[in-house]
Amino acid sequence: MKIVTVSREFGSGGRELGKRLADALGFDYYDREIITQIASRHGLTEDYVEAVLDRNMLSSFTLTFHNSFVGLDSVMNFQTDLLAEQTKILRSVAKSGRDCVIVGRNADVILNDENPFNIFVCADMESRIARCRNFAQKHEKADEIDIEKNIKRIDKERAKSRELFSDTKWGDSRAYNLTVNTSGWSIKELAGVVSFYVRSWFDRVK
Amino acid sequence: MKIVTVSREFGSGGRELGKRLADALGFDYYDREIITQIASRHGLTEDYVEAVLDRNMLSSFTLTFHNSFVGLDSVMNFQTDLLAEQTKILRSVAKSGRDCVIVGRNADVILNDENPFNIFVCADMESRIARCRNFAQKHEKADEIDIEKNIKRIDKERAKSRELFSDTKWGDSRAYNLTVNTSGWSIKELAGVVSFYVRSWFDRVK
Repeated sequence: MKIVTVSREFGSGGRELGKRLADALGFDYYDREIITQIASRHGLTEDYVEAVLDRNMLSSFTLTFHNSFVGLDSVMNFQTDLLAEQTKILRSVAKSGRDCVIVGRNADVILNDENPFNIFVCADMESRIARCRNFAQKHEKADEIDIEKNIKRIDKERAKSRELFSDTKWGDSRAYNLTVNTSGWSIKELAGVVSFYVRSWFDRVK
Repeated sequence: MKIVTVSREFGSGGRELGKRLADALGFDYYDREIITQIASRHGLTEDYVEAVLDRNMLSSFTLTFHNSFVGLDSVMNFQTDLLAEQTKILRSVAKSGRDCVIVGRNADVILNDENPFNIFVCADMESRIARCRNFAQKHEKADEIDIEKNIKRIDKERAKSRELFSDTKWGDSRAYNLTVNTSGWSIKELAGVVSFYVRSWFDRVK
């Protein structure tokens, strides 16, 4: 079975690349589905589940739960439960035996035993701001000024979330099989090129 | 004109990848040639020229020139001269108008105006040690124990040498178009895959 994981900087087009990659390879695709599944089981919103899963509680507890009158212990236990559930879902995806692309969720680390092909997607800040601005305009979410700040905040959260699972650093190219900079590419064209790279990896002489 | 630059971690197989890439693309290849040219012009050894070019003098002066009875000023002037010469040679390579692959020499930064396609080549420490050991055995240079120490030292020098030219960090994937991890690949196979990636970049719809 072939698993491809895609980790990405916010605004790099990594999610679109993952989706198109799955299409080009004919693989199943997982992204938001994992959050959706956990949220619906617990009757929680997806955003809340995401916040609980992705934050490094020890460092962001006061920020997130400052006004919620719950103790750090119970929040951390809840996080541990949800993280275990996420791991279980990811493992069951792997166990299904179907080739797949998984975007985010630290799947590269969690499914390490399955020898996934791990891709990190980045881009220069200029292209990322342009992509976010474009997205915001389409969805009529304005406030351009904070785009860069927002990008940096989300990247920081992703980096911290990885710390829960791994000693290797989020975005450090030694921790991935391939690191793709999307600046200057159309994601559509790039997906074709990267799918050739991935195919060659799984077909290579070992 | 198409320029591909290859920066690499020591022991990652980056030089071999660069050579094979040039062959696969039918591009000219530059690596040691630049050092050789400078060395022969000045009647110096290649190793000496490399040391002068690559070290960040302000931080390694005492280490390198401790016993040489030359002043820091004159060493730094000499370095400035050789760096200018290196830049001149790299520019003349670019001006020749011939497609080429250049390994090392901070060519990605120096030739930035020519819009090169910049590749960084890395690998996990285990594969790098294995590659260096293999090389050492072939060339009967033993002393395995220090391999990892040596790898780290040379990487550090490469990182520092980049500091002379650029604010971006050596090995930070945002500063390159593509970052390739050679672990698990035969360099020969990988060169074919990367050449497709590079070709697609230069052929892409802009």
